[in-house]
Amino acid sequence: MSGVSDLRADGLAALEFVAQYLERVGELPVLAQVAPGAIRAQLPASAPEHPEPFSAVLEDLDRILLPGVTHWQHPRYFAYFATSASEPGILAELLAASLNSIAILWRTAPAATELEELVLDWTAELLGLPSGWHGHIEDSASTSTLAAIIVARQATGRELVVCSEQAHSSIEKAVRMLGMRLRRVPCDDAFRLDAAALGDLRDAAAVVATVGTTATTSVDPVGAIADACAGAGAWLHVDAAYAGAAMVCPEHRWAFAGVDRADSLVVNAHKWMLTPFDCSLLWTRRPHDFRAAFSMVPEYLRTPDAEDALSLSEYGPALGRRFRALKLWAVLRCFGRSGLQAHIRNGIELAARFERWVADEPGWELCAPRPFSVVCFRLEGGDEQNQSLLERVNASGEIFISHAKLNGRYVLRMAVGNLRTTHDDVHRAWDVLLAEASKLAEASKLD
Amino acid sequence: MSGVSDLRADGLAALEFVAQYLERVGELPVLAQVAPGAIRAQLPASAPEHPEPFSAVLEDLDRILLPGVTHWQHPRYFAYFATSASEPGILAELLAASLNSIAILWRTAPAATELEELVLDWTAELLGLPSGWHGHIEDSASTSTLAAIIVARQATGRELVVCSEQAHSSIEKAVRMLGMRLRRVPCDDAFRLDAAALGDLRDAAAVVATVGTTATTSVDPVGAIADACAGAGAWLHVDAAYAGAAMVCPEHRWAFAGVDRADSLVVNAHKWMLTPFDCSLLWTRRPHDFRAAFSMVPEYLRTPDAEDALSLSEYGPALGRRFRALKLWAVLRCFGRSGLQAHIRNGIELAARFERWVADEPGWELCAPRPFSVVCFRLEGGDEQNQSLLERVNASGEIFISHAKLNGRYVLRMAVGNLRTTHDDVHRAWDVLLAEASKLAEASKLD
Repeated sequence: MSGVSDLRADGLAALEFVAQYLERVGELPVLAQVAPGAIRAQLPASAPEHPEPFSAVLEDLDRILLPGVTHWQHPRYFAYFATSASEPGILAELLAASLNSIAILWRTAPAATELEELVLDWTAELLGLPSGWHGHIEDSASTSTLAAIIVARQATGRELVVCSEQAHSSIEKAVRMLGMRLRRVPCDDAFRLDAAALGDLRDAAAVVATVGTTATTSVDPVGAIADACAGAGAWLHVDAAYAGAAMVCPEHRWAFAGVDRADSLVVNAHKWMLTPFDCSLLWTRRPHDFRAAFSMVPEYLRTPDAEDALSLSEYGPALGRRFRALKLWAVLRCFGRSGLQAHIRNGIELAARFERWVADEPGWELCAPRPFSVVCFRLEGGDEQNQSLLERVNASGEIFISHAKLNGRYVLRMAVGNLRTTHDDVHRAWDVLLAEASKLAEASKLD
Repeated sequence: MSGVSDLRADGLAALEFVAQYLERVGELPVLAQVAPGAIRAQLPASAPEHPEPFSAVLEDLDRILLPGVTHWQHPRYFAYFATSASEPGILAELLAASLNSIAILWRTAPAATELEELVLDWTAELLGLPSGWHGHIEDSASTSTLAAIIVARQATGRELVVCSEQAHSSIEKAVRMLGMRLRRVPCDDAFRLDAAALGDLRDAAAVVATVGTTATTSVDPVGAIADACAGAGAWLHVDAAYAGAAMVCPEHRWAFAGVDRADSLVVNAHKWMLTPFDCSLLWTRRPHDFRAAFSMVPEYLRTPDAEDALSLSEYGPALGRRFRALKLWAVLRCFGRSGLQAHIRNGIELAARFERWVADEPGWELCAPRPFSVVCFRLEGGDEQNQSLLERVNASGEIFISHAKLNGRYVLRMAVGNLRTTHDDVHRAWDVLLAEASKLAEASKLD
């Protein structure tokens, strides 16, 4: 059986793997160039009968699994939302796993519980949120939004959820999981929820406003939506999973106008805040409603300290909770406010450059305003051509980008946000796009 | 900004912290001996303006946080269910954090997706489950059971969930979150669901049977419950979060009789299978029903490989999924079937010894049968006396145990399961209990 004695040697090998991986990740194909099933086919069909050394795991990770990894850590990962697991966050996950603190109750993990409350307060201040909000960590925005909708339903006794056509699929998924109803509100020309089209909200449990939508990072008019919610007694949940991190820079705070009136808010630290997945931050200014919805303390979890000590499992769906606060704490300390600001500003500046190149290039067009670090663009031409272009550039292994549909048209998305992304990486993306578009044009001439 | 160059030096320091922590954890007080708020009070109220070195994080972890950690890794942690984050699992979490693979779709994480399917198949085989079941990983049994109930509701169109009086609180919590109804069925003298009392199940979406209940680890008669479910068209979900791991030993498979007829099953690898939290394994023999409930593929997630490549986010609540399979893979390989069996057998043998000491000691009584590694016992006397005893032994820092209520009486629980727990640790627990009980008796004489 693997024992304490192996940890230093095996750990050193694992650490060296990590260091070399982060050094060479930029040279690997961004999008895994494997067919479905190819990785699994190389692995044994059953678990071993007897112990194997950890070095064998590490070897197979390198040799068999790595070609099947799409590299989210790659500086030319520009798909969906670009993220980074920074070094302090990575090492904090090592520490958290070794402590294995499980915060089912305050007393089972006092440090994890109190640090989680603290770092949520720290982050709230960094993002300019009102003081006094209650925050905790969920795994993903899917879960955070699900939790908020559960609370909204219980607080209002209503069954309808309202969001824009551009809101994230997790809202529709939550509504379906809960057996509620969804109404989608149209957007204006800039893909923002049209507050005039909200309609009657007297049946609405919750309205979900988005600050930084998935396709274009558009910003819903949160103030106007808050007015409508207040008038109708509806819960206002704000999904700022991606763009919330940008609020660390005062010059972007316009996007949070009205968010101080939200009942709940989700920002993913694992998106643009340098924290390894999973770390979704969920705040509320109505903690009593959260506790009313989620507190369930059976006899075996009753403790003498319960009156003074808050247990975060009473504020969300899961009883068992991992020590996720440790990685966010490490990131906030090792980057500081200034480091986070520099990271956000760098991503936005690089995206702005890319946007200018597209605007200046004949045969290409921009497809949406760019509030943050995501550029929506396309080749002038048909959807098929753009789809082919996407497949070609992703197959090159040089860059990984994704797509959206806007006004029925197939649109390419360039999302900047990785810590290691430089001007050269963004420029290479543009070069690859130009080269593949040119090959595509040649190929279509030959047809 | 903290960069790649720091990783080797900071990582080495983090690794040394982990190694020393695991060496000395047995000498620390098991239950954190701090008052609520004491940890937070020692930390700054705001995030730093400028970057701090990682070494400062590590120092504060050691000096400020560690006294606020309840040590789940301690060999004398005997509360709730005793767990272990083993070394291979810990190091795999380091590796997973560094890859930061996010399995929203197969193509965003082919290796993570395929390895997750594989290790769930490996584990199904180790536990003697039928072949062909579909498995995936959730964070906790709370989420796994919530997911199963969502599917059951959609598959049956019914609103009632049925479980025993001894079933876990997560079932009631899920029912409340979903706005469904719950019916609790009485238990027999051995705390097993009384199948004769199931009543009419024609309105039941799901019956949740438990193999290894939270208080006594009793085993519901799954076969009889399966008969009743089949007759009424109800979904059968089996909660074997704790005891499922014991099925790696053929001599304990009696407890899984009938589980082959379950529609879904949850076993937590992070409980008794040496894997760091979070790693809850959820299997189903009805994957199409799971996919019907959870699949939601919006335009931006449509990919050309979707027909051949299964995305596990279509089988559970969350879209973003961490690379949790890596730690389970490392554990299964580094322990092997024989290592896992040895670990289970050791825990059960130690619990059996403790049970004999209680049985042989005048003034103490056993309170429930002991199928696995948890002993329910008490001082003959009043509830207050037992509660005082619990508080005294936990305040000693020598051991940490928890309690239950059985037939209205306050009962102590001794849960064995940590990888490092030896005969001496269990004996020390008994010595501490005897000594504190004796002091308690002295104190009550003086009153």
